[in-house]
Amino acid sequence: MKKTMKGLVYGGPGKIELKEIPVPVIEKPTDALVKISKTTICGTDLGILHGKTPSCKPGTTLGHEGVGVIEEVGGSVRNFKKGDHVIISCITSDGTCEYCKKQMYAHCEDGGWILGHLINGTQTEFVRIPHADNSLHPIPAGADEEALVMLSDILPTGHEIGVLNGKVKPGDTIAIVGAGPVGMSALLTAQFYSPAKIYMIDLDDNRLQLAKTFGATDTINSGKEDVAKRIMSETKDGVDVAIEAVGVPMTFDVCQHIIRPGGHIANVGVHGKSVDLQLQDLWIRNITLTTGLVSTNTTPMLLKTVMSGKIDPNRLITHHFKLDEILKAYEVFGNASKEKAMKVIIEA
Amino acid sequence: MKKTMKGLVYGGPGKIELKEIPVPVIEKPTDALVKISKTTICGTDLGILHGKTPSCKPGTTLGHEGVGVIEEVGGSVRNFKKGDHVIISCITSDGTCEYCKKQMYAHCEDGGWILGHLINGTQTEFVRIPHADNSLHPIPAGADEEALVMLSDILPTGHEIGVLNGKVKPGDTIAIVGAGPVGMSALLTAQFYSPAKIYMIDLDDNRLQLAKTFGATDTINSGKEDVAKRIMSETKDGVDVAIEAVGVPMTFDVCQHIIRPGGHIANVGVHGKSVDLQLQDLWIRNITLTTGLVSTNTTPMLLKTVMSGKIDPNRLITHHFKLDEILKAYEVFGNASKEKAMKVIIEA
Amino acid sequence: MKKTMKGLVYGGPGKIELKEIPVPVIEKPTDALVKISKTTICGTDLGILHGKTPSCKPGTTLGHEGVGVIEEVGGSVRNFKKGDHVIISCITSDGTCEYCKKQMYAHCEDGGWILGHLINGTQTEFVRIPHADNSLHPIPAGADEEALVMLSDILPTGHEIGVLNGKVKPGDTIAIVGAGPVGMSALLTAQFYSPAKIYMIDLDDNRLQLAKTFGATDTINSGKEDVAKRIMSETKDGVDVAIEAVGVPMTFDVCQHIIRPGGHIANVGVHGKSVDLQLQDLWIRNITLTTGLVSTNTTPMLLKTVMSGKIDPNRLITHHFKLDEILKAYEVFGNASKEKAMKVIIEA
Amino acid sequence: MKKTMKGLVYGGPGKIELKEIPVPVIEKPTDALVKISKTTICGTDLGILHGKTPSCKPGTTLGHEGVGVIEEVGGSVRNFKKGDHVIISCITSDGTCEYCKKQMYAHCEDGGWILGHLINGTQTEFVRIPHADNSLHPIPAGADEEALVMLSDILPTGHEIGVLNGKVKPGDTIAIVGAGPVGMSALLTAQFYSPAKIYMIDLDDNRLQLAKTFGATDTINSGKEDVAKRIMSETKDGVDVAIEAVGVPMTFDVCQHIIRPGGHIANVGVHGKSVDLQLQDLWIRNITLTTGLVSTNTTPMLLKTVMSGKIDPNRLITHHFKLDEILKAYEVFGNASKEKAMKVIIEA
Repeated sequence: MKKTMKGLVYGGPGKIELKEIPVPVIEKPTDALVKISKTTICGTDLGILHGKTPSCKPGTTLGHEGVGVIEEVGGSVRNFKKGDHVIISCITSDGTCEYCKKQMYAHCEDGGWILGHLINGTQTEFVRIPHADNSLHPIPAGADEEALVMLSDILPTGHEIGVLNGKVKPGDTIAIVGAGPVGMSALLTAQFYSPAKIYMIDLDDNRLQLAKTFGATDTINSGKEDVAKRIMSETKDGVDVAIEAVGVPMTFDVCQHIIRPGGHIANVGVHGKSVDLQLQDLWIRNITLTTGLVSTNTTPMLLKTVMSGKIDPNRLITHHFKLDEILKAYEVFGNASKEKAMKVIIEA
Repeated sequence: MKKTMKGLVYGGPGKIELKEIPVPVIEKPTDALVKISKTTICGTDLGILHGKTPSCKPGTTLGHEGVGVIEEVGGSVRNFKKGDHVIISCITSDGTCEYCKKQMYAHCEDGGWILGHLINGTQTEFVRIPHADNSLHPIPAGADEEALVMLSDILPTGHEIGVLNGKVKPGDTIAIVGAGPVGMSALLTAQFYSPAKIYMIDLDDNRLQLAKTFGATDTINSGKEDVAKRIMSETKDGVDVAIEAVGVPMTFDVCQHIIRPGGHIANVGVHGKSVDLQLQDLWIRNITLTTGLVSTNTTPMLLKTVMSGKIDPNRLITHHFKLDEILKAYEVFGNASKEKAMKVIIEA
Repeated sequence: MKKTMKGLVYGGPGKIELKEIPVPVIEKPTDALVKISKTTICGTDLGILHGKTPSCKPGTTLGHEGVGVIEEVGGSVRNFKKGDHVIISCITSDGTCEYCKKQMYAHCEDGGWILGHLINGTQTEFVRIPHADNSLHPIPAGADEEALVMLSDILPTGHEIGVLNGKVKPGDTIAIVGAGPVGMSALLTAQFYSPAKIYMIDLDDNRLQLAKTFGATDTINSGKEDVAKRIMSETKDGVDVAIEAVGVPMTFDVCQHIIRPGGHIANVGVHGKSVDLQLQDLWIRNITLTTGLVSTNTTPMLLKTVMSGKIDPNRLITHHFKLDEILKAYEVFGNASKEKAMKVIIEA
Repeated sequence: MKKTMKGLVYGGPGKIELKEIPVPVIEKPTDALVKISKTTICGTDLGILHGKTPSCKPGTTLGHEGVGVIEEVGGSVRNFKKGDHVIISCITSDGTCEYCKKQMYAHCEDGGWILGHLINGTQTEFVRIPHADNSLHPIPAGADEEALVMLSDILPTGHEIGVLNGKVKPGDTIAIVGAGPVGMSALLTAQFYSPAKIYMIDLDDNRLQLAKTFGATDTINSGKEDVAKRIMSETKDGVDVAIEAVGVPMTFDVCQHIIRPGGHIANVGVHGKSVDLQLQDLWIRNITLTTGLVSTNTTPMLLKTVMSGKIDPNRLITHHFKLDEILKAYEVFGNASKEKAMKVIIEA
């Protein structure tokens, strides 16, 4: 086996470089080494690049999504062996801490979101996965691995933090604010629960158009229309569920103005500053507001829905690149609106 | 039957007067007329008095709590008859609208909080109760009616909006911010679910002392100590449940700084302005924040716990007055700290 | 208005007759009088006809399903007025008793299943509906009323007692035993929650064929194959949810032999005798078994899913008759297999 | 360290012997070796002795409960080290299989109930615990270790399979059939949720007397009284929750005759044969019946309630023995009624 490989390395705010780095090795008996087949770029990676995540140190290989083949496992890995085809979860989970025992893997005391953040990630050729037994998922024979890259992060995030936290039910009227990859994932997975009306809200007409083909029943360009006014006029008392999938005060604000009594606001967006919560109006409205990082505990469930054809994650993929072209991929993904990009696949 | 009676009438901001007003009559077949035995004063009544509730018009008789005896019922009232001893719910519920069918009586389309707010209330001798079948509760023979005045509003509010929304579980560590009547009600009813540690937080040492006798395991005077610092040092990652029972930005802020990952903030306080929600920290912490007006749908459950001795609401009562002395009662209740007052009973 | 009308009257075991009976009148202020447009026949009606329901007395007009137009309302009916187009719920609910306040309308202390059972029913021209405010549902303008006849009983029964009690989730493997109208309703409504695999089990190949077109992924003719053997060989440890929709020991037995650890058996079938529960095997398997009569509390939700096109109840309708032909309709429905009948519509 | 030790070894139906056996060694990197301080005997051990558990092979050391001190850990154990004071869970959990990821440790694919059943158990001096990270619980400094022996099995069983499955709520009326150790554990832990009325039912007046001191509000000797008749006459429509803690058809039968519409029957008893489920009556009553082996996922919660004084498990302990006297202990425990025995502690 070779000793070095290409990896996309963070070099401090504004700097990323594809360079030759050492191939990782098994460090603990619970580790697995995975040869990456396909990976992708997340909005969070752009956040790191833009210097918004100081916990990520220069020198770190980025990326927390991907599928691949097991190259080697540590001595106490029981669920996987060399040659197994796997999905890499963006969340590392030791399976034994207080939080893991509550299925809150996001807050694992020896894991959580560490890949491509606190340890080297997946935008490379090989990646070391700690606590492999709980942090990888087997890919069934015959599956389309490219589609399953969406199960590393984006689909479980939309599903768990948007749809499940929001408690979407049959017949509901829901609104998803933000038609980026996470919002689109919420849109796709919300339909597991048969809402009657789905508003999709964004500033980009192209994305709204795409959302229609993904199942949105109504779209609103928030740059051209007063969202709250429109929704409050078209619904009885507002929406049952509002999913915030952007992460700025203005989009949060839309959510708190369209939520009906008894409704749920599910915040999925990564916020950089505080928001002004209108408790003087909301204290009396019996609303529930949730936040969260994905735990990926529904990935096995999502895998079943993909395998049975209930959902086609390929629809989120707009572009393909080779690992050598990853800087170009960052450029395209970073200019998503202009490039009409949603998720980009990078072949390792 | 007499034609006039004494009632405490709101006269505009800062003005209340005990005066002679007409005895109400049955207006609809679903009404009941109740002769008040005992009533009380709520913090919300002080809010009206201080001009904070413009929806309450001058001329309205105040009060939304009380027990009494049915004097007369309308033609289609089925559950009650003249002579029945009843608890008056602070929430009027028609039992047939979309919200009532979901047990969200707080948002009843022909009710909700209307008593002593949009229609004449209970601080008087007789009160007309709309939708009596769903808005009164029978008092079992042998019950202590004075204790049951606490079931009109204060105990269900602490229980439903604080304890149930907060999902208090056995072994939990919880914090209640505010040791007034609602916070104390949350304290008493939280113990139905056996939390291991209950922090009570207030500025008033007398109330904290009382909280200890009500079951608080730890008290913090937030005027003398840094609450967040203390709690974060004494717990693993913060509290499982934080109940906000004051209604100002500062107390809400305490809650958002002491909540652990996966925890619940249950807002019970009536807020007059917005709060600054620290989403830049909380987006990743998988917290749930709830708000709400009480629906009193747990009043029958609470009545069973009172009757079986699981809880003694009398402990909330500190003062007694006759209806003639109600202005004095308002004074005492309005200076609760100085007067060491919690709930005051007014005998009609 | 005329004084008599045609009605299908139960005359004791084995006897039904379409005869001239008095038009009902408003008896209580909470009643409504509905002019039936369309009604249907339920398996329960056949049960009465075959003498299995001694609580139904000779002289009773049968039928508990239907849609129509309000002819007159009692003095305290608030939600409906003459001329309103409505769905009649098979369950009468007073909205004020202990059970109604828990949304368990099936056990309403002044209602429950009384229509066409303890009081005169819907297989006629006019029907008196007690507690109209809580026992009727408005039909939106533009709706297909015929489809909505399925919302009186059959769809809520399959949904509430089968699908919701069984807790069907995305990705689940489920089995529905019995492809009659209730089993088919469970099949249609289970898909609101996106199970990955749906086994439909019956003795009738025609019904199994129909089930395939309704969304069953796998069918088993239990007369030709060993159901338990097949399912246990094709699944990991059995099914997540087994829905019993027949009501005899043999079909219940299938359910208890195919359920996986942690799974749910939802009994929907009306049983005439006890079953042998294999607790010596099941005590250790962490299963949940539920039973129940429908409460129709999800009818408003179901109506939204019909209006938004998530489900098409018309697919359950196989035959049409005029009220004059109702004896013929009973014959066809009573020989469902031979007649390839599912639900029959009777136009009043 | 010594090479042999005393252990209570199963020798086939009717035979147990305290004999010299090899001290176990670490076999896998996930194992821990625990020096037993205290253990106890379970009804299941008697079942093995009486030949009811053929899966337990002669030569097996019995016992699945106990506390002790870690003697040695395998290379990949992360949560424990030599010298740690621990509770041994009766359930072994690998933390990585499909069932463990759903907190259903009872059905762990490489664990479940194996201790003193499929592998050597705790009625000895040293025990090997597989998957130690997930199958042991740390004992806090200052805890009474004897009380914590009750947390290996008996209290979590009563709590999870009785109280939680039964969904006991404040104000409920519940019945527990069987006042043995599991029934008593259900009785103690049910009180975490504040039921108003607790019927305890047994044939043994001594146990019923003890139950009174543990919190039962009402007791019924089922040998002297018709349980169903009494309960149906004293309650509105039966009990909200019936917990079966014996495991024979007659006690199950009591449960199905006293359950109210909407109620829960939680089966905890280990049954040796099928029961006759009265579906002809129950199909319409909207009841829920649950079964299960304990997962011990609530052990950390229970530990908090013990440490905070919410519950005192010592009350279950009636007798003490040295390991040398374990045959005597079996005799006493096997004649529990005559000996007035509940749980017996065996000091290793």
